Amino acid sequence: MAKYPKIPEATIRRLSSYLKCLEDLETKGEKVASSALIATICNVNAAQVRKDFAYFGEFGIRGMGYNVKELRFHIKEILGTNREWRIGVIGIGNLGSALLMYKGFLKQNYKIVAAFDLDPVTVVGHISEKMGKPIEILHMDRLKEVVKARNVEIGIITTPAAEAQNVANLLVEANVKGIMNFAPSQIRVPSHVVLRNVFFTSALDNLVYYLSN
Amino acid sequence: MAKYPKIPEATIRRLSSYLKCLEDLETKGEKVASSALIATICNVNAAQVRKDFAYFGEFGIRGMGYNVKELRFHIKEILGTNREWRIGVIGIGNLGSALLMYKGFLKQNYKIVAAFDLDPVTVVGHISEKMGKPIEILHMDRLKEVVKARNVEIGIITTPAAEAQNVANLLVEANVKGIMNFAPSQIRVPSHVVLRNVFFTSALDNLVYYLSN
Repeated sequence: MAKYPKIPEATIRRLSSYLKCLEDLETKGEKVASSALIATICNVNAAQVRKDFAYFGEFGIRGMGYNVKELRFHIKEILGTNREWRIGVIGIGNLGSALLMYKGFLKQNYKIVAAFDLDPVTVVGHISEKMGKPIEILHMDRLKEVVKARNVEIGIITTPAAEAQNVANLLVEANVKGIMNFAPSQIRVPSHVVLRNVFFTSALDNLVYYLSN
Repeated sequence: MAKYPKIPEATIRRLSSYLKCLEDLETKGEKVASSALIATICNVNAAQVRKDFAYFGEFGIRGMGYNVKELRFHIKEILGTNREWRIGVIGIGNLGSALLMYKGFLKQNYKIVAAFDLDPVTVVGHISEKMGKPIEILHMDRLKEVVKARNVEIGIITTPAAEAQNVANLLVEANVKGIMNFAPSQIRVPSHVVLRNVFFTSALDNLVYYLSN
């Protein structure tokens, strides 16, 4: 099944960063970009950019740079973000609210189609006040039913740590394909579900390592 | 200066994840952990765990596993999180509020010592209501002065995209060493400042890549 099986995880991470850069360039009306320009914007070196793109065959024209639109199209195809992904957010505290209002998602084909909280009555006003188009927050009790009915493929967990595993179990039972966990606890899922933990401390650890060494 | 100059970025990321795992094990009273156990908890394979630890010399005893306390101490030393880091958060909307309330930070030697917003009056009540020990939100005008006075080393930017570069410039002028940018825009800093961008779309891109391939 794997079209590109041997790509290092670090390259995948950078592709996402290049994509962001190419979108900004396209917005500015740029048609062509050199690896040097992309490298500068993304804080990597140009050789790394060329090496990363080489995993996927020949995109650039030597001495000319890359066609911005075409490269963007290819990267989206490689990442799998060339089609819409349906997302549910569980736990609408501050972080959950921030994600519901995050403007970058829709532009990237990430569509939040469901949101859940243990106390939906309290948060409805809070969300709809700031969002252009309010999303209805539903009670956690309806998670399994609604996730199935709305074809949610990815669940984002933004609950307190103690509730994260329980929510993950419900998402798995409701047949989500992937889970992104922001709760500060290691959760377990069956191997057919892709899990990514996003710990804020890890991002800081990474920064501090480079400050210390 | 670099004690461990050739460590791949992916290893650094995993060290942070191992650290979290070891802390959970220590909390549960575990004294010794095998690479297989650490691997299972962190969702990697055991050979990878052993390979990652091998960058830093011999930690484990063959057939016995790793001393949890000792390994944790070593990883913190490697990452540079064995001492306190002083942090400022700029932009106290939903995401900024979530970070101010994030319980994981203090446990990891990350101490938020300053918080700024363009409209501090509105947010003060919002924060102090939920936090045990409220932090005073100051007006953005005082950023440079307060960051210097309180020896803030790392600035976390959680403003809207349009303000991120301006805030970064002020942080650089106030002599921070590192910046973590959550605003969805690519910002630029001088090379002596370490910058990490955390884009929520990138975390999703990574997940979606593994779902698609």
